[in-house]
Amino acid sequence: MSSTTKEEGTTYSRLKEKLAEIDCLSSLAGLAGWDELTMMPSGEHAALLRSKASAVLAGVIHQKSIDSELGKLIANSQPSRPKDIANVKRAKEEYERSAKIPSDMAKKAAELQSEGYQIWVKARTAKDFQTFSPILKEWVDLVKRRCELIKPGEDAFNTSLDEYERGMTAERLNEIFPVVKTCVVDLIQKVYAKESPVALKKGENVVSNGTFDVDTQAKLSKEIALKLGFDLEKGRLDVSVHPFTGGCGPGDVRMTTRYKENDLSEGLTGTIHETGHALYEQGRNVTEYANQPVSRAHSMGVHESQSLLWERMVALSPSFSTFLLPELKKSFPKEFENVTEAQLHASLNVVRNPSVIRVEADELTYPLHILLRTELEIGLMRGEIAVDDLPKLWNEKMKQYLNVDIEDDSRGVLQDVHWSSGAFGYFPTYLLGAMYACQIFEAAKKALPTLEDDIAKGTFAPLREWLRVNVHDRGSECDSADDLLVLVTGKPLDAEAFTKYLTEKYTKLYNL
Amino acid sequence: MSSTTKEEGTTYSRLKEKLAEIDCLSSLAGLAGWDELTMMPSGEHAALLRSKASAVLAGVIHQKSIDSELGKLIANSQPSRPKDIANVKRAKEEYERSAKIPSDMAKKAAELQSEGYQIWVKARTAKDFQTFSPILKEWVDLVKRRCELIKPGEDAFNTSLDEYERGMTAERLNEIFPVVKTCVVDLIQKVYAKESPVALKKGENVVSNGTFDVDTQAKLSKEIALKLGFDLEKGRLDVSVHPFTGGCGPGDVRMTTRYKENDLSEGLTGTIHETGHALYEQGRNVTEYANQPVSRAHSMGVHESQSLLWERMVALSPSFSTFLLPELKKSFPKEFENVTEAQLHASLNVVRNPSVIRVEADELTYPLHILLRTELEIGLMRGEIAVDDLPKLWNEKMKQYLNVDIEDDSRGVLQDVHWSSGAFGYFPTYLLGAMYACQIFEAAKKALPTLEDDIAKGTFAPLREWLRVNVHDRGSECDSADDLLVLVTGKPLDAEAFTKYLTEKYTKLYNL
Repeated sequence: MSSTTKEEGTTYSRLKEKLAEIDCLSSLAGLAGWDELTMMPSGEHAALLRSKASAVLAGVIHQKSIDSELGKLIANSQPSRPKDIANVKRAKEEYERSAKIPSDMAKKAAELQSEGYQIWVKARTAKDFQTFSPILKEWVDLVKRRCELIKPGEDAFNTSLDEYERGMTAERLNEIFPVVKTCVVDLIQKVYAKESPVALKKGENVVSNGTFDVDTQAKLSKEIALKLGFDLEKGRLDVSVHPFTGGCGPGDVRMTTRYKENDLSEGLTGTIHETGHALYEQGRNVTEYANQPVSRAHSMGVHESQSLLWERMVALSPSFSTFLLPELKKSFPKEFENVTEAQLHASLNVVRNPSVIRVEADELTYPLHILLRTELEIGLMRGEIAVDDLPKLWNEKMKQYLNVDIEDDSRGVLQDVHWSSGAFGYFPTYLLGAMYACQIFEAAKKALPTLEDDIAKGTFAPLREWLRVNVHDRGSECDSADDLLVLVTGKPLDAEAFTKYLTEKYTKLYNL
Repeated sequence: MSSTTKEEGTTYSRLKEKLAEIDCLSSLAGLAGWDELTMMPSGEHAALLRSKASAVLAGVIHQKSIDSELGKLIANSQPSRPKDIANVKRAKEEYERSAKIPSDMAKKAAELQSEGYQIWVKARTAKDFQTFSPILKEWVDLVKRRCELIKPGEDAFNTSLDEYERGMTAERLNEIFPVVKTCVVDLIQKVYAKESPVALKKGENVVSNGTFDVDTQAKLSKEIALKLGFDLEKGRLDVSVHPFTGGCGPGDVRMTTRYKENDLSEGLTGTIHETGHALYEQGRNVTEYANQPVSRAHSMGVHESQSLLWERMVALSPSFSTFLLPELKKSFPKEFENVTEAQLHASLNVVRNPSVIRVEADELTYPLHILLRTELEIGLMRGEIAVDDLPKLWNEKMKQYLNVDIEDDSRGVLQDVHWSSGAFGYFPTYLLGAMYACQIFEAAKKALPTLEDDIAKGTFAPLREWLRVNVHDRGSECDSADDLLVLVTGKPLDAEAFTKYLTEKYTKLYNL
C-alpha cells in the first residue's frame, strides 16, 4: 500500500509541475498583455512584433495544455485532500476542453478572432450590421461545433457559458433573471417618475458638475486603493485608456485606471472597481497552491462580484460617503466646502436617463442590457434565432425593456466587442457578479456586525480579510458559484438579495 | 530546375518561420528581464514567480533551438543572396552550439549559474575566495567539456570567446592587446606625473564638484538621447539601479539610466553610452530580416563599440563640449555661469587615481583590467593556471600593471560577476569594443568631413545614419568583427587607431 501511495504522490507531484509550467507561461502572456496596454512604445513595429510573439507564446501554451503526458498524469492522479481533488478536477476540465478541439479548429478560431475584431470595428464605424453578419454566422457555427466536441449532446449555450461561469446553466439563469427583470422594470418606472434623489435639487450633482484636477484625483484614488488593501509590494497601479486588472498572478497584480476632469466619480469608483478585482487576485492561495488551477479565481462572475462588491456595496453606500467626504474636502476644499454626506451619496448614486449603451448604464438599467443579450445568445446557440434577425430583435427588446429607440446598429447590436470573438455566455457573468456581490455582502454584514461603522471610519481590513478567507483563498475549489455561495452565505444564489438591495436603496434615495 | 528552386525556397521560408518563432519567444524573455529590473513589484512572490516563469520560457526556447526539424531545415536551406546565406550560417552556428550540448549538461550549467551567482555574492561579502573556488573549478571543467563538444580538438578559450565575439581568437588578441599595453603603461606614467589637465586647477572639476538636481539631469539627458536619435516610438527610457539596454528587439528597445546628485557626468555619459547600444538595436534590419539571426547585433564587442563610440568619441570630444556647454548653462545656470568649453571638456576627461575596481576605471587604465582578466582566462582554459592560484596571480598583476595593492579579494579577484556564470571570454569584448569604436570613428570622420563641426552644432543625424548603414543594418552578416571592420573601415582591427587616439588625446589634455 505504501508504495502505491508514494507512486500516486509522485504522479500528482509531476502533474502539479506540468500545470505550474503552463501557469508560468500564462503569467508571461499576462505580462505581455499588460505591457502592451501601458508601457509598449507606440510604433508599428513594436505592435507587430508583440502580436507575433504573443501568438507564438499562445501556441506554446496550447501545445503544453493538450500534451498527452499531461492527460495521463491527470487520469492517474488521485490525491486525497479536497483542495487537491478539486485541483485535479479543474485540470481535467481544462485539459478536456483543449484536447478535444482539433488543431485546425483552434487555428480557425484564432483567425476568426483576429478577423472578427477587425471586421467588427469596421462594421461599427460604418454602422452596418451586414458587414459583420457573415463572421457572426461563422462564429455561431464554430462555437456550436466546438461545444458538441467538448460535451457531445449537451446544450451548446450551457457548454459555452460554463467556460466563463463554471457550473452555470441556461435553466438556472431562467430561474434567476426573470425575478430581476420584474423588480427592475418596476423600480425604473418609479424612479423616472421622480425628478431627482431627495437629497439633491433637480440637475444637481456634486461629483460630476465641476472641474477636478486629474493629478489630485489620481493621488486620492491611489490612497483609497491602498486603504482598501491593495498591496503595492504585490502589484502596480497605472493609467490606461481602458481600465483593467491583469498582470502575472497573485504576487504581481497590475491594475489600471483613468480619470475624467469633469467627473470625479469615474476615476474614483473605477479605481475601487479594479481594486476589487485586484484584491481577489492578491488574495489567491500562493502558499501550497501557487501556479495551480485550483488557486485561480472561480469564474468571471465571481471575479465581477469582487469588483462590484467594493464598488457598489462599499463605495456607493451611505457609510462610505461618511468616510469619503472629509477626504474630498481635503483634496478639493473649494468644491466640497458646503457639501453634505447625503448630497455626496445621492450624487454618486443618481439614476441617469436610460442609456442605449450598456457600459454607460447605471445599476438599475444594467440588468436589462444583460437580459437582452442573454436571450439573444441562447436563441442563437439553440438555432431559434437567425443572425440576420439580430438587429430587429435587439431594437424591439430595447424598446420593450428600456423604452429607448436605437438610432443605428453602432449604438445597438454592434456596440459590444464580445461576439466578435465568439464569446457567447460571457455577458450573463456581469449580472451574476452583481447578484453574487449582494448576497456575499449580506453574509459579510452578518459575520461582521460593525461592518457599516467600519466603512464609515475607513477601516476596510475586516471585510477584506473575511473575503480573503471566504472567497479569494478558496479559488476554484467549488464546482459552481452556487456551491461557493452555499459555503460563503449558507445558500445558493438567491435573486432576492439583489432585488431587496435595489428596492431598499432606491426607495430611500428617491422616496419612492 | 524551377521546382528544385521552389523547393529550396520553401525550405528556407520554413526555416525563417522557425527562427522567427525562437526570436519571438526571446523577445518575451527580453521583456520579462526588462520588467524585472524596472517595473516588477518588490515583493518576494513576484520575484519567485518571475524566476520560475523565466526558467520555463528559457526551457521552451532551448527545446525549440535544438529541434531536429530545425537542424534539417538548416542543412537543406541553400539560399543564394549573401545576407540569406549569412542568415543560414548564423542559424547553423547557434543550432550546433545548442544541439551538441546534452540536456543534462545544459541543466547542470543552468544550476551552476544560479548557484554560482549566490555563492559569488556570499564569497564577495565574506571576502573569501575559498568559498567561491569550488564552483569556479566546476565551471572551468564544465566550460572546457562543453567547448570540446562544440568544437572537438579546438582551443577551449577560443570556442568560448567565439560565443561572445564571433571569429575572435586568443592568437588574434595576442597580436592586438600587447600593443595597447605598451601604449597605456607609458601614457599612465606620464599622466600621473602631472597634477591635472592643463585647463583645470588642481582638484578642480566642473561636473563632479557640485549638487545637480536629479530631475533636471534626467530631463537634459533625455533631450540629448533624443537629439542623438533615440526614437521613443521604438523604445523607452527608464531609471534602474544598474543601467542597461534590453527589451524586445529593434522596434521596442528599452534603455535605463541612473543619476548621481553630486556627479553630472555619470548620468549624462551613462545615458549617452546606453543610447549608443539602443541606436544599434533600433538600427537593425526589420524589413526583410525581422526576427532573423542575421539581423541581430554582430557580437558583444561590436555592441560595445557602438556605446563607446557615442560615449567616448562623441560625448567626450572637445566638439561635444562646444554643443553641451550652452545646454548645461540653460539647465544649471548658476553652476556653469563662468565655465569654459576647455574646462568642461577637461572635467569630463580627467584621469583619476588608478582604481582597483574595473567598473570605476577610466579609459586609460581600463585596458589593463581587461588584459589581466584575459590572461587569467586563457591560462584557466588551457590548464596553465589553477583556480586556487588566481588570487595571488590577480594581486601580482594588479601591482605590476597599475601599481595598486589589493586589500582583499572582494576588491580583487571576486569583484566581477562574470566568472560566476562561467562566462570566459566575455571580458575581452569590452576592450575590443573600445578599439573598434576608435577605428570606426576614424572611418566616419573620413566619410563625413564636417563631422566634428556637426557634433559641435548638435547635429548627429549624419553620423547616426552612416553607422546605421555601415554597422547597424549589417547585423550579423560578417563572420568576424575583422571582416566587418574591413567593410566599414577598409582594414581589419588595427590597435594603432586606439593607441593613436589615446596618445593624442592625453598629450593635448595633460600637455605631456
